[in-house]
Amino acid sequence: MLTKQVRDGLATIVGEENVLDAPMDLVVYSYDATPDYQTLPDAVVKPRSTKDVANIIKLCNEFHIPLVPRGSGTNLCAGTTPLHSGIVMIFNHMNRILEIDEDNLTAVVQPGVITLDLIHAVEEKELFYPPDPSSMKISTIGGNINECSGGLRGLKYGVTKDYVTGLEFVLPNGEIVRTGGKLAKDVAGYDLTSLLVGSEGTLAVVTEATLKLLPKPEAKQTMLAMYSSLEAAGETVSSIIANKIIPATLEFLDQATIQAVEAFAGIGLPTEAGAVLLMEQDGPVEVVQRDMKKMKELCEAGGAFSVNVAASAAEGEALMQARRAALSALARLKPTTILEDATVPRSKIAEMVRAIVNIAEKNNVQICTFGHAGDGNLHPTCMTDVRNKEEMERVEKAFEEIFAKAIQLGGTITGEHGVGVMKSPYLAWKIGEEGVKAMAAVKQAFDPNNIMNPGKIFAKETRKRVMIQQ
Amino acid sequence: MLTKQVRDGLATIVGEENVLDAPMDLVVYSYDATPDYQTLPDAVVKPRSTKDVANIIKLCNEFHIPLVPRGSGTNLCAGTTPLHSGIVMIFNHMNRILEIDEDNLTAVVQPGVITLDLIHAVEEKELFYPPDPSSMKISTIGGNINECSGGLRGLKYGVTKDYVTGLEFVLPNGEIVRTGGKLAKDVAGYDLTSLLVGSEGTLAVVTEATLKLLPKPEAKQTMLAMYSSLEAAGETVSSIIANKIIPATLEFLDQATIQAVEAFAGIGLPTEAGAVLLMEQDGPVEVVQRDMKKMKELCEAGGAFSVNVAASAAEGEALMQARRAALSALARLKPTTILEDATVPRSKIAEMVRAIVNIAEKNNVQICTFGHAGDGNLHPTCMTDVRNKEEMERVEKAFEEIFAKAIQLGGTITGEHGVGVMKSPYLAWKIGEEGVKAMAAVKQAFDPNNIMNPGKIFAKETRKRVMIQQ
Repeated sequence: MLTKQVRDGLATIVGEENVLDAPMDLVVYSYDATPDYQTLPDAVVKPRSTKDVANIIKLCNEFHIPLVPRGSGTNLCAGTTPLHSGIVMIFNHMNRILEIDEDNLTAVVQPGVITLDLIHAVEEKELFYPPDPSSMKISTIGGNINECSGGLRGLKYGVTKDYVTGLEFVLPNGEIVRTGGKLAKDVAGYDLTSLLVGSEGTLAVVTEATLKLLPKPEAKQTMLAMYSSLEAAGETVSSIIANKIIPATLEFLDQATIQAVEAFAGIGLPTEAGAVLLMEQDGPVEVVQRDMKKMKELCEAGGAFSVNVAASAAEGEALMQARRAALSALARLKPTTILEDATVPRSKIAEMVRAIVNIAEKNNVQICTFGHAGDGNLHPTCMTDVRNKEEMERVEKAFEEIFAKAIQLGGTITGEHGVGVMKSPYLAWKIGEEGVKAMAAVKQAFDPNNIMNPGKIFAKETRKRVMIQQ
Repeated sequence: MLTKQVRDGLATIVGEENVLDAPMDLVVYSYDATPDYQTLPDAVVKPRSTKDVANIIKLCNEFHIPLVPRGSGTNLCAGTTPLHSGIVMIFNHMNRILEIDEDNLTAVVQPGVITLDLIHAVEEKELFYPPDPSSMKISTIGGNINECSGGLRGLKYGVTKDYVTGLEFVLPNGEIVRTGGKLAKDVAGYDLTSLLVGSEGTLAVVTEATLKLLPKPEAKQTMLAMYSSLEAAGETVSSIIANKIIPATLEFLDQATIQAVEAFAGIGLPTEAGAVLLMEQDGPVEVVQRDMKKMKELCEAGGAFSVNVAASAAEGEALMQARRAALSALARLKPTTILEDATVPRSKIAEMVRAIVNIAEKNNVQICTFGHAGDGNLHPTCMTDVRNKEEMERVEKAFEEIFAKAIQLGGTITGEHGVGVMKSPYLAWKIGEEGVKAMAAVKQAFDPNNIMNPGKIFAKETRKRVMIQQ
């Protein structure tokens, strides 16, 4: 509950119309796309400018009020839930593409820009912004930056951090810092830009970003390969990379996911297949043709019972849409869908998927797996019901075992979703207690009063843990 | 001067044979490639393992002894001079390539590996490690990581930070942290990997790195375009990028540099040209041929009086060697060579080069310019003599004006050399006092006793500054 002084202070900064605290508004911003995490904020505030952000953050810092910057709330780690109440900051008024610079191949954007709007805007100029999280139709660039969002094109093109070359951000003390710029090279001190990307709103509020663009690839082709066994599919992933081909997209869907997507989208996916690989290559026409031919051969040599190259761009796009619909398709099956992002070195994909199957069986829970096989970033997805406490305990146990297995294979607890609340108890598994302490020292240096998105990344307490078998 | 207790402690950790403190040894490690900075260390220590590093750093932390990690000392910002004496740590014993993983396209290396040795080792497996600082024949990967080294391939392929996916490092308290891994995606907490890369040895000692590799490009071609005027050359740089071509290398040499290189290497460079552009494209054969053809047309349309495509790989390599020899060639002309790396958005190259010419004339100093035009990273290089105090004042004045101009054009004070001692007085020009304060808070969080490479990045005092004209 904000004091009258703080409430009035906010209204003075942004205008009464940009401070929302009706019960309905508070409920709307009490949760994000992560199941089973909900806390009411005290108010929702819409800054109109960097100056507004600075004034709000100073007020929060003075009165030790939690501040949660939020894009569209599509994250899957409870990263934007207002765990300790306080203020949720949204960027509806700071949603402009400020510039697309064709000479320097850069864009300058405000945090509230929708990812797909940016992608379309640069494509009109024959340019390319590669990061494409599945939520890109509604996610914002600010949210993508806070979470270092990945996507289907990560294998060849990297993730959000690879495209942020400069930032403007506001520190908890209200100071405005500008880093980087339209620069391919800049080593003026520590790389605060990279530190901010993926910091989940726990260090500062990002108010502007300079993004690197690429020339738009001139051609693209899509291919679907069907397998009886998931091991064979996993081995094909390894053999494609080992043959020095880096496809733009190399996605994996297991049988349960295929069946759910087909039931949802009806696009003719082979529901009898044990697994499919969905591949895209882009680039110059000759390269696309050559790589697709070679990948087709490798799929066939790897035991695919059918390999189809999409006959047209529209057919290819339909296949990709099917993949992008996987979460929606699975979400129809049960009241609660928990989508994780355990990630392993790409050579360990088959082993990891098999382990997930075994862990699900052992704990008697329903887990489908799909994801970005080419970069080892899997999405084991559990269909469950949060109201069933006994089952939820088994679900949590299963995910703990999945995280432990990923770590054991040289992987990580989160490839692209972030730590948030959801994975904070497991962070030390990946980075060690020493690493968590180093991160906490950085947090303390930036935000001594712990107002920025408190309760995220750093676990309040360590949960009971599954032993990691070495 | 180390106490007997500390001196004995070091010998106990690494063995007497790995503690050097004869006067000759101290002189050898009292300076690096940066002119006019020299301080004797108290000892030079050669750890044999991460455990040795941890024990040394704990000893240093206990007794507040400065510790300077050093590769081959090729940096140009006085980044590895032992400004406050103490211990210089070198990695002759930690110089192994631990693994090249062809399935995951990664290499795991110790910090003492020579950059070119790694490049050759991965090329034998048809793989590619792109960062290629001009010093790569002798520079180490550890040094490259500390400085976030760039190189000639930065335009298309990025710099060192784009290839480090995991680190092992030792904190000043002796704790060992492992980040990242063989992972294309990892968002488990703050990106400490990126924070460490380019931190100039001021936060921790890097003891192992996991590096991303690419498939080796199948073809490469080299081309030289000669111009009467540097503006025309600069405009061609912009037009190549604006035509959506990203060459592997796009280098610029001004007339004075051309003449110095030709006198040094005698490879038939056109000493009458006002500027040359040296271009490379790599990739699939068809793409290389197409891009080279298009670039040739753009050079001719941009006013090049001659454009020659190297007839063979050997001829191309000779041209590239000429570019890599620029510093050596210029260094013959005068007793002291100061090579800077002011960087601007690539569309501002011509304007920046012209400004450098004017600034040199105005201050009556001799400055040649060459560098990575494609990524806006120029190397204005001054031939002078540090014994001439009056001239050195004019040199410093000229470089101040060059940094100010770079900032005014949206650039930075250092693209790839780092801040070190040399550019610390100018850091706030780029990042603001607020940014410097944020960086200092990170430094304090990692290294509360300020033992790690003290005196670097953060200026002890602010030098007299040239006003920045906005």
